[in-house]
Amino acid sequence: MLPYEDLGFAKVDHHRTLRKGFPEVIFGQGKSPDQIVAIAEALLQASDRFLVTKAAPEAAEAVQARISDATYDDQARIIAVDRRKEPNLVSGVVVVSGGTSDLSVASEAVLTAELMDCEVRRVDDVGVAGIHRLLDNLPVIQKARVVVAIAGMEGALPSVLGGLVRVPVIAVPTSVGYGANFGGLAALLAMLNSCAPGVTVVNIDNGFGAGYLAALIVNGSVK
Amino acid sequence: MLPYEDLGFAKVDHHRTLRKGFPEVIFGQGKSPDQIVAIAEALLQASDRFLVTKAAPEAAEAVQARISDATYDDQARIIAVDRRKEPNLVSGVVVVSGGTSDLSVASEAVLTAELMDCEVRRVDDVGVAGIHRLLDNLPVIQKARVVVAIAGMEGALPSVLGGLVRVPVIAVPTSVGYGANFGGLAALLAMLNSCAPGVTVVNIDNGFGAGYLAALIVNGSVK
Amino acid sequence: MLPYEDLGFAKVDHHRTLRKGFPEVIFGQGKSPDQIVAIAEALLQASDRFLVTKAAPEAAEAVQARISDATYDDQARIIAVDRRKEPNLVSGVVVVSGGTSDLSVASEAVLTAELMDCEVRRVDDVGVAGIHRLLDNLPVIQKARVVVAIAGMEGALPSVLGGLVRVPVIAVPTSVGYGANFGGLAALLAMLNSCAPGVTVVNIDNGFGAGYLAALIVNGSVK
Amino acid sequence: MLPYEDLGFAKVDHHRTLRKGFPEVIFGQGKSPDQIVAIAEALLQASDRFLVTKAAPEAAEAVQARISDATYDDQARIIAVDRRKEPNLVSGVVVVSGGTSDLSVASEAVLTAELMDCEVRRVDDVGVAGIHRLLDNLPVIQKARVVVAIAGMEGALPSVLGGLVRVPVIAVPTSVGYGANFGGLAALLAMLNSCAPGVTVVNIDNGFGAGYLAALIVNGSVK
Amino acid sequence: MLPYEDLGFAKVDHHRTLRKGFPEVIFGQGKSPDQIVAIAEALLQASDRFLVTKAAPEAAEAVQARISDATYDDQARIIAVDRRKEPNLVSGVVVVSGGTSDLSVASEAVLTAELMDCEVRRVDDVGVAGIHRLLDNLPVIQKARVVVAIAGMEGALPSVLGGLVRVPVIAVPTSVGYGANFGGLAALLAMLNSCAPGVTVVNIDNGFGAGYLAALIVNGSVK
Amino acid sequence: MLPYEDLGFAKVDHHRTLRKGFPEVIFGQGKSPDQIVAIAEALLQASDRFLVTKAAPEAAEAVQARISDATYDDQARIIAVDRRKEPNLVSGVVVVSGGTSDLSVASEAVLTAELMDCEVRRVDDVGVAGIHRLLDNLPVIQKARVVVAIAGMEGALPSVLGGLVRVPVIAVPTSVGYGANFGGLAALLAMLNSCAPGVTVVNIDNGFGAGYLAALIVNGSVK
Amino acid sequence: MLPYEDLGFAKVDHHRTLRKGFPEVIFGQGKSPDQIVAIAEALLQASDRFLVTKAAPEAAEAVQARISDATYDDQARIIAVDRRKEPNLVSGVVVVSGGTSDLSVASEAVLTAELMDCEVRRVDDVGVAGIHRLLDNLPVIQKARVVVAIAGMEGALPSVLGGLVRVPVIAVPTSVGYGANFGGLAALLAMLNSCAPGVTVVNIDNGFGAGYLAALIVNGSVK
Amino acid sequence: MLPYEDLGFAKVDHHRTLRKGFPEVIFGQGKSPDQIVAIAEALLQASDRFLVTKAAPEAAEAVQARISDATYDDQARIIAVDRRKEPNLVSGVVVVSGGTSDLSVASEAVLTAELMDCEVRRVDDVGVAGIHRLLDNLPVIQKARVVVAIAGMEGALPSVLGGLVRVPVIAVPTSVGYGANFGGLAALLAMLNSCAPGVTVVNIDNGFGAGYLAALIVNGSVK
Repeated sequence: MLPYEDLGFAKVDHHRTLRKGFPEVIFGQGKSPDQIVAIAEALLQASDRFLVTKAAPEAAEAVQARISDATYDDQARIIAVDRRKEPNLVSGVVVVSGGTSDLSVASEAVLTAELMDCEVRRVDDVGVAGIHRLLDNLPVIQKARVVVAIAGMEGALPSVLGGLVRVPVIAVPTSVGYGANFGGLAALLAMLNSCAPGVTVVNIDNGFGAGYLAALIVNGSVK
Repeated sequence: MLPYEDLGFAKVDHHRTLRKGFPEVIFGQGKSPDQIVAIAEALLQASDRFLVTKAAPEAAEAVQARISDATYDDQARIIAVDRRKEPNLVSGVVVVSGGTSDLSVASEAVLTAELMDCEVRRVDDVGVAGIHRLLDNLPVIQKARVVVAIAGMEGALPSVLGGLVRVPVIAVPTSVGYGANFGGLAALLAMLNSCAPGVTVVNIDNGFGAGYLAALIVNGSVK
Repeated sequence: MLPYEDLGFAKVDHHRTLRKGFPEVIFGQGKSPDQIVAIAEALLQASDRFLVTKAAPEAAEAVQARISDATYDDQARIIAVDRRKEPNLVSGVVVVSGGTSDLSVASEAVLTAELMDCEVRRVDDVGVAGIHRLLDNLPVIQKARVVVAIAGMEGALPSVLGGLVRVPVIAVPTSVGYGANFGGLAALLAMLNSCAPGVTVVNIDNGFGAGYLAALIVNGSVK
Repeated sequence: MLPYEDLGFAKVDHHRTLRKGFPEVIFGQGKSPDQIVAIAEALLQASDRFLVTKAAPEAAEAVQARISDATYDDQARIIAVDRRKEPNLVSGVVVVSGGTSDLSVASEAVLTAELMDCEVRRVDDVGVAGIHRLLDNLPVIQKARVVVAIAGMEGALPSVLGGLVRVPVIAVPTSVGYGANFGGLAALLAMLNSCAPGVTVVNIDNGFGAGYLAALIVNGSVK
Repeated sequence: MLPYEDLGFAKVDHHRTLRKGFPEVIFGQGKSPDQIVAIAEALLQASDRFLVTKAAPEAAEAVQARISDATYDDQARIIAVDRRKEPNLVSGVVVVSGGTSDLSVASEAVLTAELMDCEVRRVDDVGVAGIHRLLDNLPVIQKARVVVAIAGMEGALPSVLGGLVRVPVIAVPTSVGYGANFGGLAALLAMLNSCAPGVTVVNIDNGFGAGYLAALIVNGSVK
Repeated sequence: MLPYEDLGFAKVDHHRTLRKGFPEVIFGQGKSPDQIVAIAEALLQASDRFLVTKAAPEAAEAVQARISDATYDDQARIIAVDRRKEPNLVSGVVVVSGGTSDLSVASEAVLTAELMDCEVRRVDDVGVAGIHRLLDNLPVIQKARVVVAIAGMEGALPSVLGGLVRVPVIAVPTSVGYGANFGGLAALLAMLNSCAPGVTVVNIDNGFGAGYLAALIVNGSVK
Repeated sequence: MLPYEDLGFAKVDHHRTLRKGFPEVIFGQGKSPDQIVAIAEALLQASDRFLVTKAAPEAAEAVQARISDATYDDQARIIAVDRRKEPNLVSGVVVVSGGTSDLSVASEAVLTAELMDCEVRRVDDVGVAGIHRLLDNLPVIQKARVVVAIAGMEGALPSVLGGLVRVPVIAVPTSVGYGANFGGLAALLAMLNSCAPGVTVVNIDNGFGAGYLAALIVNGSVK
Repeated sequence: MLPYEDLGFAKVDHHRTLRKGFPEVIFGQGKSPDQIVAIAEALLQASDRFLVTKAAPEAAEAVQARISDATYDDQARIIAVDRRKEPNLVSGVVVVSGGTSDLSVASEAVLTAELMDCEVRRVDDVGVAGIHRLLDNLPVIQKARVVVAIAGMEGALPSVLGGLVRVPVIAVPTSVGYGANFGGLAALLAMLNSCAPGVTVVNIDNGFGAGYLAALIVNGSVK
């Protein structure tokens, strides 16, 4: 019998941790602050961690008013509660981003992976227009067991990285850009068509998804 | 001779109830509060019900100032007047939604079907990422004579339901999501390509259309 | 100094094995049979394996005329040469597909992963319209360390799987379908918007990319 | 325990009739004639009916070589086997099409509904450019309990019908047209945006889906 | 020698009236109020009429502060100056619109044609969902020498009209709608694919263009 | 009472000539040669003209085998029968095309207008890359009462013409081009966004529609 | 060894001037005022020029508060610092724009080229609807060694210019327009499909890119 | 007075060489072999060179039958006649391509530039998946005065090159790829959004346009 808790407007999936190894994560967009608070309180009864993505500042305030140890990262737009006791951190995740405008997505990926017991290295602002910055950081990147590669505009970073490392590259297109960028579509299509093997793609601006997957991969590889 | 009333800016279709079995429904977007009030007053002279969809709060206030028994559901964005006397309710409509962020569309469907003489059951937050919640509610859903299945993001809920029930499934894609969701396009295309037979689709966020169609189906099946 | 061999029309990347752990893979589309033969002969001087994807039968014949141990799988459209001696196979890859029409992409994924030292389990024709077939095979799938989920039409399979397993799910949209399928766009968008965490996506019909990535993940996790 | 039969390349869903009220229908595109024959033989062991959609003539020949009572309609591209004994036919389905070029989709809808125990009326070539033809046939159409409305090009037929009948209108966009038709996209979008309530939409050229749904609706309404 | 006046930021085309029969019309969007005032003052030195489309209220205020007989229609978003003396009006333009939400585009068409010496009849709110309203107004419409047909959502009105009149039908798609309307794309594509001959299309929400063309047609037909 | 003839698969609209001033025109694509022959024979019983557009050579052969005076223009892909006796031709239509690759669409426009009692002038291969060719032909073009402007690729011709003439310009985008032309979409969008007033647009490659509309305009203007 | 300076959130590419001949240019969108200030201060330690594009007024204020000689052009949305001493200006760049609404993009191109040692001529408001204005300015334009052609709506200006000059034409589509303009897509596609040889295209609204490229071309041609 | 020769179906632009510095180039697609022959014969009366792009083999045969020194490159699909006497070749054009499948477009660029008096260097198969091959060829590329960068799939090559050279980079997206490549759209969008300054883009597969522009740039820079 799989347990869930029915709040009326939501069915909180307490079984998620057993099934997936991590508690249910809340998608903050389109939910009221009150709804998020109620789900938070329900989930924290059965879990030592809590994560809301794409969360507005008002939702963060409402959660923090009720849950004193909740934190809010306004760049990543993440509300988190972390009650782990001496977590056993796994290394191997490296998050690489193309430009300063991509930092919010990179932070979303980093915070997610950290909450999933990863020790994360990050290498920011190494876009392909100045490729010496990327090559100069290769020693760090090539030690990764999985690379998260985040880029907007033409989205070329994952392809270049994919040719240089022998581990999975999780590509995250961002909506950074304008005009024929079409809200990240340009980078998304570029990444899906990467000529470098070992590259895979998540949704535009989905730093959470990339961080989550990276954690799954390194956690799987140490057990 | 088919009657309609010419208000100048609008031609109120008094004949609609005879022809369609339900009075004209007003699409609230792009109409001024004054226009909506005028149409409401004209329609209510010949009908015991009145419905405005996608209505802004200002329109609701204007209507309520003139029509004291008008109600407004701010989640569903529906203005309604219901002067039925002991309606003969028909059961069989079940409205199923994928996540908490889809509740506004679900409410639009529910309120519409209720105003069309249906008794509606609803099952919320049973998206496919925690499919045990859906399976756990199957006993309710399988009693339906028509299912309205509402989901954003990947829009997989109608396909899964379509494989489990022997009645029509009306799929409603919602604009919930971000990035490559493209305002609900992802869910819309998914639902149109459902591999489960018996699934049909209405416009993105069109809870009204789904509720209306569901009522037609169950009303037809009891007469 | 990174070595490559210049054939004039192509620069064969002999260094690829060192850098990526696997020799250069040839994209067969848009290359003449003669070009493919020449690249094959160059690559096999330094490698014990050789792989051409999206290869036409004429290319296969030309290769087989020169390289007697080359094989061709006409469903997967793969030309392969495998001269490994007692490879050390790693288990953990499970390839799941939605329907019989997806088999060619599934085979491309399976053959790729096998050539990369994986022992692959496959579970075919378990699309969501008959979800009991999928649930019945869960014991096999839940033993995976990575799941490749292949589906056309509405592309719901990866989302459902993503809710049921705790390992990475590599989603492969296929171009199977018609009408508003738009050559696989419907499934692609659905998979990118999956509400289940741990799902990532490769290009439409890119069984090779999924098999390659799956092999990277399980190989990484045993070392 | 839900039964299915594993053919290796396919898992035949014998339980479908119990669950859905109709046996599994085969999507013919992308399957080899041999595969279709094997599935047909498996399904007919447990069912009195068999249906393949989007079937090529070669598949029909292969099936007919093994199953002598199989029929093929080359306009509808349907392979069917019908071993019902004195089926109890239900009336109420009317299939309306806009032009002669839409006939293949109309036939697909008609044949599907007939195999699902419906007696179908059809009204062809009543597109909106000569609306008197449509109005002249209204007496037949208004007796329907569900209308299937099939049109290519601008796809206006369902909207006009939706304003004239009080029963569900299942709209089927066809790929008939050229230029900015974009393979049926124009008609699809028009139908999804119908201003007439009670209209719902299936995939482009999906006559099967419309016929199936229509049968569900009228069958539901007589029980 | 073709005259124009160089304002620095703009080259006012005084020759336009000779060449085109009507002075230059200003597209108000993206121009500052100051720029519009300066162009207005320059144009009115050589013309008895002046027209700005898609004009914001602030632009209207700025123009009216300098040009006392300038008028602003906030529904049509048109600034106009009309200094004609006893214009010789031509009849024959009928502007038909589908719904109350389309009125702003209809007004833009009407005001434009009126300023171009047309006497315009208008028939509003006769969308195809209540086709008796349209048929009831046919006597007026069939007297037209050109029909402007304005509709949002599925954009079916021009096709129905195109089947009923023997004069040109200028179709104007509007952005009225939501979801798969995609800002008027649905209506635009529908109109471009009209099966009724004699239908032509202008840009989404381009009431001005339709009114202008209608005036050209009826003016041509009286000279 | 509006007459039509029911052929079973088609309802021939004999009333069209009365209502529209021209008999029903047949869209050849998607109809079998036999169907076209049957419609032709029915229509010619009540009309002195007959027109099939987008007709394949096989259809032309079938028609010509039965109707000896039927002609086929393989560039325009038009089957026509013309039994007019001393038609009263109206001048004023000028068909202008951008390049030699657009000739088939131009011919479709010319033949259509000619069959509708127009005397047509044509000016071919005057695309904007060599604008002196266009300017050199202005004396002919400026005598027009309506201009049909046909262009593929960037579709700039109608805008340039629209700035030079005071009569309606009917723009026809063609599918001539490659790459980001997207089957004529580039030219279509350009024409819809023309900055020159008086320009209107028909479907991609729709020479018939442009010729028909041009004939309506000049015929209207002489009566 | 290629130098860059690591600010934590950014890696300032001091080597850019050597490699590219011009210091790193900052894309202002998506960066905080603080980040822009920090990058500015770092860059100006090694360069005599500094350029931020797509900069918000708040960013300009923050930069000007720290760097007293920084200027802000609110039409072009450019922050610039120019400490060149008697630069050796190169002539030959002519920037041509279609309408007053395109001025902001034109200014972005002009300012960029000027900062790159060009003397720029500009010709504004010469769109193709009044082509005499363009032809009247040909003497200036034909003296160019490179032309930047900026236009929104149908984007025809570069094609017309491309037929008249023998030097490169850099086309810049702008987002000016509405409806089927789709944010500049119409102009972009038109320009990519130009039938005039020698035309090339940059991103929508990318005045910077065009000015930069123009400067590269004329600088290359004098050395 | 600008001369052109009227062939009836075509107006041959003899003035083009004066105006543009190079004779008219023929777009072969959509023209019959006979038409191409006639244009060739007309053009060669006044020019020492002749070029047809996107030419089918049948057109080449027809031209060669009449013009004995015409050549055909079946990879580039170019028909050319070259009667220059000791042309003064200009160096500086380097054509770089990503993969063997891009060779046809690269050849089109090379042949075009060569016919325009350029000496061209080419560097093939240096896509970003093996970036050492690109870096190894930098000495050749950095000597260029203009770089043509050709790539399909993700189209990252121009961005990487744009960061490494100080001269214009003309990016050519190719249609090489499959799935979400959408006929070259992925590479096109990527290139338009390049974060490297100095990159500009021509149409998908438009090797001719890139070669032509490159020749203009280097020719301009030596005069």
